[in-house]
Amino acid sequence: MPSTWILGIDIGGTSFTVGSVLRDGTRVAAMRNEPTIRESGADAVLARIVALGHEVMEETRALEPGAEFIGVGAGAPGPLDTKTGVVLLTPNLGWVDYPLAERLRTGLDLPVEIDNDANCAVLGEWWMGAARGTRHAIGLTIGTGIGGGIIMGGRLYHGASDSAGEIGHITIDSNGRRCACGNYGCLEAYASGPAIARRATEALEAGAESAMPAMVDGDLSLITAQLVYQAAEQGDDLAREVVNDTAHFLGAGVAGLVNIFNPEVVVVCGGVRQAGERLFVPLRREVARRALKPAVAAVRILPSELEVPGVQGAARVFLERQ
Amino acid sequence: MPSTWILGIDIGGTSFTVGSVLRDGTRVAAMRNEPTIRESGADAVLARIVALGHEVMEETRALEPGAEFIGVGAGAPGPLDTKTGVVLLTPNLGWVDYPLAERLRTGLDLPVEIDNDANCAVLGEWWMGAARGTRHAIGLTIGTGIGGGIIMGGRLYHGASDSAGEIGHITIDSNGRRCACGNYGCLEAYASGPAIARRATEALEAGAESAMPAMVDGDLSLITAQLVYQAAEQGDDLAREVVNDTAHFLGAGVAGLVNIFNPEVVVVCGGVRQAGERLFVPLRREVARRALKPAVAAVRILPSELEVPGVQGAARVFLERQ
Repeated sequence: MPSTWILGIDIGGTSFTVGSVLRDGTRVAAMRNEPTIRESGADAVLARIVALGHEVMEETRALEPGAEFIGVGAGAPGPLDTKTGVVLLTPNLGWVDYPLAERLRTGLDLPVEIDNDANCAVLGEWWMGAARGTRHAIGLTIGTGIGGGIIMGGRLYHGASDSAGEIGHITIDSNGRRCACGNYGCLEAYASGPAIARRATEALEAGAESAMPAMVDGDLSLITAQLVYQAAEQGDDLAREVVNDTAHFLGAGVAGLVNIFNPEVVVVCGGVRQAGERLFVPLRREVARRALKPAVAAVRILPSELEVPGVQGAARVFLERQ
Repeated sequence: MPSTWILGIDIGGTSFTVGSVLRDGTRVAAMRNEPTIRESGADAVLARIVALGHEVMEETRALEPGAEFIGVGAGAPGPLDTKTGVVLLTPNLGWVDYPLAERLRTGLDLPVEIDNDANCAVLGEWWMGAARGTRHAIGLTIGTGIGGGIIMGGRLYHGASDSAGEIGHITIDSNGRRCACGNYGCLEAYASGPAIARRATEALEAGAESAMPAMVDGDLSLITAQLVYQAAEQGDDLAREVVNDTAHFLGAGVAGLVNIFNPEVVVVCGGVRQAGERLFVPLRREVARRALKPAVAAVRILPSELEVPGVQGAARVFLERQ
């Protein structure tokens, strides 16, 4: 039976994911993930994305005889130009002024639209995940950095030059920790994955008692945010404190967003979801304490629901520009 | 010659202003201002607004024979419901669930639309002031508190329940000064008019040298933000430091807004404009230092241009809902 599909691509600094998305968003087929290997250079990475794209489409057609692909949506770390399809600069990938849309179009022989990876993830969650059915939603993507996406009136908001939504770089402590962006006190400097690991490591170096050092055979450089969540789950007091502090910092940032946007949903995507209710309960409490009551009453703060929201979101980006 | 006008009303805790706005926004006629006298009660205040409205319309018809009024736009401190026209709660006015639109409609015998006063001011600046010609603009109104308005894609953004744009209550220091909203470290707690005066007073109480005490005959309770700007203009070192610190705090907040919204213009309305380039030069520098480069490149940070932006903005609110 003929069906219409979009190829969705989510490109990250560590790995990329490609999958087929049914036009109405309800199904994802043949999802595949590969390491990015950024050292191999932009063209080599692109060639492997294109090869995987062809494999995914072939597999989808085998599963769904008559499946027709009408286009490609791709998310990449920004800043990028959604109109020209050029990725301007991605420190995580080492790309500079890379014509991503054009290269994908040539390699896959389909029309292509691109957007920022965080925008794609949030759009995916709005289309088919935790924020579905809303008109106004804000999303945070918490990983190596903190990205964000803004849905207003049912559409992704891009700002004047495609760089809106940099939620990781709102100030929560104007004289605080140095951020990778060069500024002080950004949310990202407190609540990204590496920042969470760093706060745990700093406490351990200062002599705090914890089971975490034993979990990494004494090599504190191996402590990750995931390990902190795991230790918190196992009852480690320091790890629980680090998770609580994360909720406090995120709460300050999210409360600001709630006061500014008055959204229906704030969706939190990324590895930080693994901390589960241990994070979300104090996060909601902190936002309720900090934000203005009418805005608090209107908002739900939820973890993301989709396995790889960026793949579905990238497909949706393609559809929205048709 | 017949011409079409809207009555614009800007209601504040201290005074209200009423003026006639030509339909295309290019002219304001018969602008009049009166003290609010909130102690007289909501109905008495409303009766005086209605009376002034009739006077303004009469004066306009005398100036412009054939002038026709098609409606009324009014801005009031929020939170309020733009659909029902009810002001839910204004600590500054002492109104609770006050049916402002209905009362104005009855009193002035014209259709009425209402919105938050900060939204009106920013919409006015977007329509006819510093942000005209842009699609994406953010405005701050700095007075007793700090309000804000968001223009996205050429339209005022209201959020899920009309409470978007509460820019004064973004956190700039999550463990910082207590704000009137009950939270800690809000922008408003550092950069509103009273907060500016308070920072100056605190420094004087701690023994800082300054010409300011002499300007108020030694009564530090009389120090206002306006007096701080005046002293800074006259070369007072402490006053200049207070203005610089204001730029630093505002810069942290505005940088966050620039990173989130990627706007073309950030317009600053209110008495703080009187500080002039002494404030705006370090403010722009702080934002450039703090915000991400692509967003900084896209934005201009400007003082408001209109005498009473809320009057024109309120008229525009009426027009947008027709």
